[in-house]
Amino acid sequence: MGYHIEPGVMYMMPTHFGPLSGPRQGPDLKPFNHVASPKSTTYTVSFLTDADQLEALCPPGFAVAGEPVVTIASVHLTEVEWLAGRGYNVLGVMFPVTYSGERDRAAGPLLAVLWENLADPILTGREQIGFAKIYAEIPAPIIRGNETHLSASWLGFRFVDIAIRNLIAVPPANYPPPPEVARDGIALGMLHYKYIPGTGQDSTPDADYAVLQPNGYSQARTTALWRGEGSVQFHAASWEDMPTQYHIVNALASLQIKQARGASLSTSIGGEDFSRQRRLR
Amino acid sequence: MGYHIEPGVMYMMPTHFGPLSGPRQGPDLKPFNHVASPKSTTYTVSFLTDADQLEALCPPGFAVAGEPVVTIASVHLTEVEWLAGRGYNVLGVMFPVTYSGERDRAAGPLLAVLWENLADPILTGREQIGFAKIYAEIPAPIIRGNETHLSASWLGFRFVDIAIRNLIAVPPANYPPPPEVARDGIALGMLHYKYIPGTGQDSTPDADYAVLQPNGYSQARTTALWRGEGSVQFHAASWEDMPTQYHIVNALASLQIKQARGASLSTSIGGEDFSRQRRLR
Amino acid sequence: MGYHIEPGVMYMMPTHFGPLSGPRQGPDLKPFNHVASPKSTTYTVSFLTDADQLEALCPPGFAVAGEPVVTIASVHLTEVEWLAGRGYNVLGVMFPVTYSGERDRAAGPLLAVLWENLADPILTGREQIGFAKIYAEIPAPIIRGNETHLSASWLGFRFVDIAIRNLIAVPPANYPPPPEVARDGIALGMLHYKYIPGTGQDSTPDADYAVLQPNGYSQARTTALWRGEGSVQFHAASWEDMPTQYHIVNALASLQIKQARGASLSTSIGGEDFSRQRRLR
Amino acid sequence: MGYHIEPGVMYMMPTHFGPLSGPRQGPDLKPFNHVASPKSTTYTVSFLTDADQLEALCPPGFAVAGEPVVTIASVHLTEVEWLAGRGYNVLGVMFPVTYSGERDRAAGPLLAVLWENLADPILTGREQIGFAKIYAEIPAPIIRGNETHLSASWLGFRFVDIAIRNLIAVPPANYPPPPEVARDGIALGMLHYKYIPGTGQDSTPDADYAVLQPNGYSQARTTALWRGEGSVQFHAASWEDMPTQYHIVNALASLQIKQARGASLSTSIGGEDFSRQRRLR
Repeated sequence: MGYHIEPGVMYMMPTHFGPLSGPRQGPDLKPFNHVASPKSTTYTVSFLTDADQLEALCPPGFAVAGEPVVTIASVHLTEVEWLAGRGYNVLGVMFPVTYSGERDRAAGPLLAVLWENLADPILTGREQIGFAKIYAEIPAPIIRGNETHLSASWLGFRFVDIAIRNLIAVPPANYPPPPEVARDGIALGMLHYKYIPGTGQDSTPDADYAVLQPNGYSQARTTALWRGEGSVQFHAASWEDMPTQYHIVNALASLQIKQARGASLSTSIGGEDFSRQRRLR
Repeated sequence: MGYHIEPGVMYMMPTHFGPLSGPRQGPDLKPFNHVASPKSTTYTVSFLTDADQLEALCPPGFAVAGEPVVTIASVHLTEVEWLAGRGYNVLGVMFPVTYSGERDRAAGPLLAVLWENLADPILTGREQIGFAKIYAEIPAPIIRGNETHLSASWLGFRFVDIAIRNLIAVPPANYPPPPEVARDGIALGMLHYKYIPGTGQDSTPDADYAVLQPNGYSQARTTALWRGEGSVQFHAASWEDMPTQYHIVNALASLQIKQARGASLSTSIGGEDFSRQRRLR
Repeated sequence: MGYHIEPGVMYMMPTHFGPLSGPRQGPDLKPFNHVASPKSTTYTVSFLTDADQLEALCPPGFAVAGEPVVTIASVHLTEVEWLAGRGYNVLGVMFPVTYSGERDRAAGPLLAVLWENLADPILTGREQIGFAKIYAEIPAPIIRGNETHLSASWLGFRFVDIAIRNLIAVPPANYPPPPEVARDGIALGMLHYKYIPGTGQDSTPDADYAVLQPNGYSQARTTALWRGEGSVQFHAASWEDMPTQYHIVNALASLQIKQARGASLSTSIGGEDFSRQRRLR
Repeated sequence: MGYHIEPGVMYMMPTHFGPLSGPRQGPDLKPFNHVASPKSTTYTVSFLTDADQLEALCPPGFAVAGEPVVTIASVHLTEVEWLAGRGYNVLGVMFPVTYSGERDRAAGPLLAVLWENLADPILTGREQIGFAKIYAEIPAPIIRGNETHLSASWLGFRFVDIAIRNLIAVPPANYPPPPEVARDGIALGMLHYKYIPGTGQDSTPDADYAVLQPNGYSQARTTALWRGEGSVQFHAASWEDMPTQYHIVNALASLQIKQARGASLSTSIGGEDFSRQRRLR
């Protein structure tokens, strides 16, 4: 009498009302085209830290690769097609790792945490593709002369401040090339660790596996790029300040900043839907 | 070198920064006591609808039980201990069902959808205990004389309006008794259907099972109760209005309202952490 | 051809659409009855400071009277009739003064500044009755056991934190008596200094006068009262942090806290519309 | 002992903490330079209406001039220097009028009402320069292909929807020329009617006069311009929906739309501080 989950169609809770409409499946169950949208403005700041501190943040099968450089990236999105033209802002923290599983090897940045200021992409991102997304308020940048200030807060507690300054335009000829899709037989892309607890006492996790977002599928074209200087400061929080996220913020606040590694601002059009996201074993 | 997931400890994404702090595990990995908090103000409105319409919303193993009465309940929570004393508001839709699995039988209201105005309990509720929680703005009630008005919106589109009026105080001697924990050998409690998609094309779901929140564990004491009349109206939405939830709201807007079945307002202290939530088979 | 301002009727900009509807004039041009609404929850914290510091904040004709005790009061209002049943929160700073004008003498607390989290009462309060209201985010209190925490922010910069603890219920027999309306021939009430600049270079102010909110017209009845301990901390702000209010917050942050003078929590029903507010000369 | 208002310096309530810092006077009492900021994105939609309906909205001394065309303009501002680099959004309604006073004659658009989503510029605009500013939520535009959707709400009640479509870029050679500063001896600029009620029963208004914002002082340079089609719909509101603004919205909702008169989108850099705003007599 009731409904059944149709095979080959994407659902999320609540499943009772039919298939979802989200980034990877629109209202007619078709994917979106990511050529003309979204529009993105991306701010990054990087710094060199202590390798051991990053190593301690690596999930099973992962190890820090190369220089222990942490990058904080904040992307301000508009004209997002799957949100019918609305936008939202994100702020993520990543560092370079390799993954060695029983079957797969991969390398790229590990997306350690991604704050977003809208619940809908947090849910689709966590459950469909294993992004470690959590909620924060991420206001529009404050721009004074050649300084740009970004921040993020949780229910009024501002836990990170970013400043970018002295940006210099990069000529299009010097834009970075498209990312490689593999190197030395190792798949390249953004890496994630999907973990969904099981329900019920003493249950095993419903999901507990590494995930690769392979390079090579994004249709984003850079429309402008600047490079300059930047700094980032995470503010230590008590449990009372951020009862669900204090452990995350405090770990980031404790990272040594050994050397600033520059900042950037870029704008782009187009993107991808991460439908090639795949489980690693 | 990296970290490992400790057995017997609760985690959620991002797992890299250690165990979570949430409703069922505090900052010292201990549970909270739910005797003196939270404080809840609960508004309900019920109506008789068409059984076939509800039947169509039943997931595998579920069937409508008894009268097809839909109840909308909005709970406004304060002094929530796991949020270090903050609060949030929720609005849920439920109707009575039975569940018959290979092994388990259970009965109670199916929580078809639960809107909440804070991302943190949405994430813990979906992933840890299979609640079909999604995001909405749920403002404080508007109270004019003997009328109370509630509503919920998604990014400015108001999709439901509730009015409650002519409330009459119920004497404590007439408060409802505690819910039964079983009847005729069937476990009783709120029912849910946990569904987490797998990651990767053609993957099977990471979770796809019925969940029971068994009666008998809540420490909530009713401190006041009123009964009266009420009405609820869901507003049909286009994909453009609510690109991620229009199918949910439209299904609810299409439910026949055959007869009003009253409204209530209650206040209570205490609650439960749903740690007895269990998977049904 | 156009409209004219009707005498005896209240208007505010924009005047083009007819008389205003606000706290002192409803949609039928009639006043509201303030017996059964609003409902108020009021938190106060007081401290002894340096008299000279307060004296420097006194406008022409005003002087500090008696002990230089500063009181911070935050009122959380619901069921506000002129807002058709909605609510809002305020946070004010006051200290005792006398006013001696050419004609009038008055005494009572000077409302030095009043933050409110809704623009509508800010506009009516400033323009109609000379309250020094400005905008802030004022969230619901955070309550953990016997501690209550209040705060206020401006676009994410938290400029004040208040903590109240160890509240003990006051029996109704010990509730404070209604305020006196005069003493020694001096009118008593809350005092304000209305100032509206003129438009045009080198213009004189449109308004520049003291205002009295006379005691004796409120219909508020205290429904519960507690007294306890409290502390308040204003956080110094740079122009970049609070470009329109930094001078206010910094003056308050610089006040010496010589001695704590207690805190209170009270609830009440009813109020007044301040229509007896009058200009002092 | 107390403070005095310094002549030649701008103040607003609360005056007790020293001169204001705002659009026309920065933290060092100096004006801001409006060459490199703010950045503005402006959307306009116009329609022909009934002259008598507009005539009824004209304050004393004003009359509709020429075609009764109503223009709704929404400006989304960023990098606002007096807000230390923050931004805000506004939505105004205007129509062409002439003003004939005892001494002055002027012509230009009357700014009938201007909604803004931030209290600080509402206060400075109303009190310093007589703009009829009131509060609304004004979200970022929703952009889907060649359609842009704008809206405004008051505490969740959406009172206006604007759609703009089929925009075609205008070549810089065809940008409109700078506005004339006078014609036939009549001063040209935006017109306003400043009205501040007096405090106290039976008092005369503190301000009640026409105001001219003369053309010729803006440093805004158009950086891009498109023209296309557009529509606007105000939604009638009950007192319960918008207790402080229903009369404004309903008057606008009742305006006949006889003919669409096009829409535009433009971006610009720079502006003015309206310090030449002057009282007309």
